[in-house]
Amino acid sequence: MRRLVNDPYEVVEEMLEGYCEANCDYVELLEHDNRVVVTKHPSPEPKVGIIVGGGSGHEPLFLGYIGKNFADAAVIGNINTSPSPEPCYNSVKAVDQGRGCLYMYGNYAGDVMNFDMGAEMAADDGIRVETVLITDDVYSSKVVEDRRGVAGDIIVFKAAAAKAAMGADLDAVKAAAIKANDHTRSMGVALSSSTLPVTGKPIFEMEEGDMEIGMGIHGEPGVRRTKLKPADEVVDEMLAYILEDLPYQPGEEAYVLVNGLGGLPLMDLYVCHRRVAQVLKEKGIKIHRALVGNYATSMDMIGMGITLVKVDHELKELLDYPCDTPYFKIEA
Amino acid sequence: MRRLVNDPYEVVEEMLEGYCEANCDYVELLEHDNRVVVTKHPSPEPKVGIIVGGGSGHEPLFLGYIGKNFADAAVIGNINTSPSPEPCYNSVKAVDQGRGCLYMYGNYAGDVMNFDMGAEMAADDGIRVETVLITDDVYSSKVVEDRRGVAGDIIVFKAAAAKAAMGADLDAVKAAAIKANDHTRSMGVALSSSTLPVTGKPIFEMEEGDMEIGMGIHGEPGVRRTKLKPADEVVDEMLAYILEDLPYQPGEEAYVLVNGLGGLPLMDLYVCHRRVAQVLKEKGIKIHRALVGNYATSMDMIGMGITLVKVDHELKELLDYPCDTPYFKIEA
Repeated sequence: MRRLVNDPYEVVEEMLEGYCEANCDYVELLEHDNRVVVTKHPSPEPKVGIIVGGGSGHEPLFLGYIGKNFADAAVIGNINTSPSPEPCYNSVKAVDQGRGCLYMYGNYAGDVMNFDMGAEMAADDGIRVETVLITDDVYSSKVVEDRRGVAGDIIVFKAAAAKAAMGADLDAVKAAAIKANDHTRSMGVALSSSTLPVTGKPIFEMEEGDMEIGMGIHGEPGVRRTKLKPADEVVDEMLAYILEDLPYQPGEEAYVLVNGLGGLPLMDLYVCHRRVAQVLKEKGIKIHRALVGNYATSMDMIGMGITLVKVDHELKELLDYPCDTPYFKIEA
Repeated sequence: MRRLVNDPYEVVEEMLEGYCEANCDYVELLEHDNRVVVTKHPSPEPKVGIIVGGGSGHEPLFLGYIGKNFADAAVIGNINTSPSPEPCYNSVKAVDQGRGCLYMYGNYAGDVMNFDMGAEMAADDGIRVETVLITDDVYSSKVVEDRRGVAGDIIVFKAAAAKAAMGADLDAVKAAAIKANDHTRSMGVALSSSTLPVTGKPIFEMEEGDMEIGMGIHGEPGVRRTKLKPADEVVDEMLAYILEDLPYQPGEEAYVLVNGLGGLPLMDLYVCHRRVAQVLKEKGIKIHRALVGNYATSMDMIGMGITLVKVDHELKELLDYPCDTPYFKIEA
């Protein structure tokens, strides 16, 4: 394998130690639970607690988005594995300021089960916890509620966190998250698998020179496996799925995220973004803001995803709201 | 190959188009030279122009560091190839505000030749241009002046740009760059080559499961090729070279950059940073600030580098000075 780790069974703990060391101005591990990363700067005014999480291997998702006016805590599972209920519960105890908490995470069965148990444990303590599942991956199911969450996570987290930072109550914060999710669609393409440190092998086999549009970030099946095509053709096909699923009228605005899955060069992401911008322009869709980079990865997987958010005045205000985390900064 | 591009001979132009589109709040291409990216927000007070550059394939270096209180322009070559003299000259014409300009780039023969010609052309126009070469790669030569520049580029750019933003004259800005370079040491390790779009092949062959400490970012030879070792052993060996070359006394402070070369997961970079922090702590060296991520890459090369900067009061002030670019932000 081509990974640089020590004991593969300790890789998540060692990553968390390194992350909290490097970003010690922002975060720390919860003293009694080393799978919960919390902000060092809780809001001086009590606000709704923003808790995100899921399996490891998607860095900088989830822990990279803890900071001012963004997430208050991230609950960290093993690689591609949900965190267990206990840290989900502990995160609530750590960040609740008396106004309740919102759990947000990609829609995967293990996460749903364990976060729900965490919420029940918190309810026994009298703390209200609501949940919004992110379901942005258009190809993962015809039924929106059954879809998986991918890079759209960041959009939904950002919108809800801004609403919470503005002082809104839990119902309003949850409504902002649901609205952001409803307006967000993503589609991915993979050119390789990612490598599991424990086995030292790819999760699945993929021939060099092949690609699969629609593949999920854990290798869930996509549209079909084909020979690698030029970037523009790949982008066009991905955008067609996205824009069919949530059509835009000319004059409407999109917030764009071209997300690298880990191993694809930034050069290629910008080549792809160039085509995204061309297509949107042709269709009369204005780009409100564009993010290009590795925001939600699958370790060393070579591939990328396109996320479009149909933004109105409210979503623009939430997504542009100042924030400061190690991997997401918007200046005041 | 596992790259997502169109015509491989157009990849740099297409990347630049995508970059300027996504970051249109920050930069634009020079109208009459599509290999010069310039800031859209020149300093309202005339200041020394900060110009960086070199071959493509190291994104977000160099263009990602154009912005407020950082670089004013980047001159862009083909992949792993120096820009030609004309854009070096054009960048000066574009950003000079009457106080002269400073060229900064990694020490590679082609860059030196072409930027020097650009400086001569500017001199004919009566514009003074000085140059500081970055030479942070400790293993590339025993003679410091002959060493190559790698991720230390960013440190030197940042220090000089801050000095210029403070209003210093060209001599003082150059002195700040030289001081930053003198205090900076880097060492890399590669687990793979990068892939050239034009050939569709790796630049050099590297067996899966092998590694080479000391290898340069274009594949320049390192210490020796060995079987992959645990991250901690690799970090220990790299730090030994760095700390032997520029020793620290207990109590001295280091600014740390753990830089990914492109294909190594962020997870692994944090595992490595954890060990860097442990070793520095053991030696009584305080970490002033730590950056972990893909700051200077070699496209899809799997590997990483460690950069240590021995910082005193002046360097800390320069490196902590507020700035705002797409890939480097420090809040005021």
